Amino acid sequence: MAGSGDQHDARARASRLRVMAFDVDGVLTDGSLFYTDEGIELKAFHTLDGHGLKMLQKAGIVVAIITGRRARCVELRAHNLGIQHLYQGVGDKLAVMTAFLSGLGVGAEAAGYMGDDVLDLPVMAACGFSATPGDGHPLVQNHAALTTVRHGGRGAVREVCEFILDARGELAAALAPYLPAAER
Amino acid sequence: MAGSGDQHDARARASRLRVMAFDVDGVLTDGSLFYTDEGIELKAFHTLDGHGLKMLQKAGIVVAIITGRRARCVELRAHNLGIQHLYQGVGDKLAVMTAFLSGLGVGAEAAGYMGDDVLDLPVMAACGFSATPGDGHPLVQNHAALTTVRHGGRGAVREVCEFILDARGELAAALAPYLPAAER
Amino acid sequence: MAGSGDQHDARARASRLRVMAFDVDGVLTDGSLFYTDEGIELKAFHTLDGHGLKMLQKAGIVVAIITGRRARCVELRAHNLGIQHLYQGVGDKLAVMTAFLSGLGVGAEAAGYMGDDVLDLPVMAACGFSATPGDGHPLVQNHAALTTVRHGGRGAVREVCEFILDARGELAAALAPYLPAAER
Amino acid sequence: MAGSGDQHDARARASRLRVMAFDVDGVLTDGSLFYTDEGIELKAFHTLDGHGLKMLQKAGIVVAIITGRRARCVELRAHNLGIQHLYQGVGDKLAVMTAFLSGLGVGAEAAGYMGDDVLDLPVMAACGFSATPGDGHPLVQNHAALTTVRHGGRGAVREVCEFILDARGELAAALAPYLPAAER
Repeated sequence: MAGSGDQHDARARASRLRVMAFDVDGVLTDGSLFYTDEGIELKAFHTLDGHGLKMLQKAGIVVAIITGRRARCVELRAHNLGIQHLYQGVGDKLAVMTAFLSGLGVGAEAAGYMGDDVLDLPVMAACGFSATPGDGHPLVQNHAALTTVRHGGRGAVREVCEFILDARGELAAALAPYLPAAER
Repeated sequence: MAGSGDQHDARARASRLRVMAFDVDGVLTDGSLFYTDEGIELKAFHTLDGHGLKMLQKAGIVVAIITGRRARCVELRAHNLGIQHLYQGVGDKLAVMTAFLSGLGVGAEAAGYMGDDVLDLPVMAACGFSATPGDGHPLVQNHAALTTVRHGGRGAVREVCEFILDARGELAAALAPYLPAAER
Repeated sequence: MAGSGDQHDARARASRLRVMAFDVDGVLTDGSLFYTDEGIELKAFHTLDGHGLKMLQKAGIVVAIITGRRARCVELRAHNLGIQHLYQGVGDKLAVMTAFLSGLGVGAEAAGYMGDDVLDLPVMAACGFSATPGDGHPLVQNHAALTTVRHGGRGAVREVCEFILDARGELAAALAPYLPAAER
Repeated sequence: MAGSGDQHDARARASRLRVMAFDVDGVLTDGSLFYTDEGIELKAFHTLDGHGLKMLQKAGIVVAIITGRRARCVELRAHNLGIQHLYQGVGDKLAVMTAFLSGLGVGAEAAGYMGDDVLDLPVMAACGFSATPGDGHPLVQNHAALTTVRHGGRGAVREVCEFILDARGELAAALAPYLPAAER
């Protein structure tokens, strides 16, 4: 079920989503792994992504984070965004996604994953929809249903959230509260 | 009163300003939200913006910060720049701006707001002048009176400050002290 | 033995590697040296580089880090990536590399070094293979066998790892586990 | 004595230098002012600049840092680079430079300053040589003898150091130790 990169196909796939999961490093961040001499880790998330993830949840889509590494700052960010499904330190993302979807009673065709590296390809291929940032690994860009213009940690996640809402015909309604009455 | 993007119109709007308010994340910063594992937050402001905000205040324009999030480092930066009007953790920016302007006895046509995301559109539309950074959300760029060349946290605020001073015919005087006598 | 920049020649040189060593600042990072007021240092490594270094080691190539500066955070990153050969605070990189290769019983023609500054040129010239990031010093780009498209700290090391594996005819096998069965 | 931007003229001016002073924010850094919630400040210097400043000092040029802000991390970086002349929290850069040059018995025509903002123009105009990063304020670019290709905190200072050494006919000798014998 690997994506073809065909925009029309990507929209059809996105329109069926009930669950959307995201990688952290290189997707919700620009891939930078900050270490201090004291062993403290920092991550830089992006402000635009926050509102996108909130709109996605408001539209009834279950949002999850599935990542291979583990850092406490990811818990803090997930908590701030109301994301309850957080899987860190995951060796086999496909296995975790499969168990997660099984628990929700959702089929893989209604699930999506956004990743930036080759390790993400199996879970991306198994899902109905997949996306990668504009600076993701070239091989991942070849297989993702959608490659965003924005880079990881620079609004790529926001772009995916709006792509999904638009594919469902719900973006205009999600943005309407912010627009002048004449344009709604 | 949403901006048309017309440069001439933007100058006319900017020339009438008595109050200018700025968003923080994505405007005074590049949108990066740094979290440490210990839950400490960092922000990166930009050196060019500092002098712009000082020139704006020196020209008699009231400068304010109105932001949806809340972080102690914003207080520190505002204090360093002599900005006394700081509103953090704001849910409804338009309501806060309206009350703020009412307290000052300034009409909305003499107020401006610079934001980067759709949440900023209502307050931007209600103000006489609006601006957004070159990497702001596309929809915000469509509605802002001015989209800067520089990006958020990379001098976008400085560009707006100089645009306003120039529209008022005061930029040359503000820069004169730094130029050789022959060019003043 | 300075590289000619000829792509075919670079592949031949890379195919003979048994040892590959990397600089830190400007190669594994984007060159930013973060200092806090308290004297704590931070570095930002990149997520894509991690998997590249793991694949290189899995292919039987000995990976080392040889750097002129010294920071505890480099130890943490090296440990996380399973890199046991870490030389920090090195004044004469060529001398350290020579002693290191001698201990391993490996000739210089089977060793490579990736650096970004002129200080790295002697060790690069002495090795059979050399590489530099797309934003390395121009003089280093002139002498490196390979200049990557990606910049330091933005995936340049990953690009080198895959270049080496590809030159050895092992890249497809290294990536196969992540690809759909039909494409392996 | 403001620079004309003429490359030939800039070389002549640079060739006469005995003292070269640098701004910090936007020159030795990319202009980002990092604040933590706890009020700790961070700065990101660049690895390429370090070797440039060392080569400049080795060539007998006195290197100084003159900056309007004040941060302890600048002391640490200056110490690491062997820069003894550090002036922080400077309100009037021209006055400090004048007193500094007077103490050294060096005339202004043999001094240079690299800055990024309009506040730097008076000291730049008073010196025999001036430079600004590729992302400096447009007005400063108009007046600097040299505008570098690299941006502040991304190697702009290194580019200036090599420009000065080259103008003095000393760059080849400074780089010779790192090049193969045949190219020296």
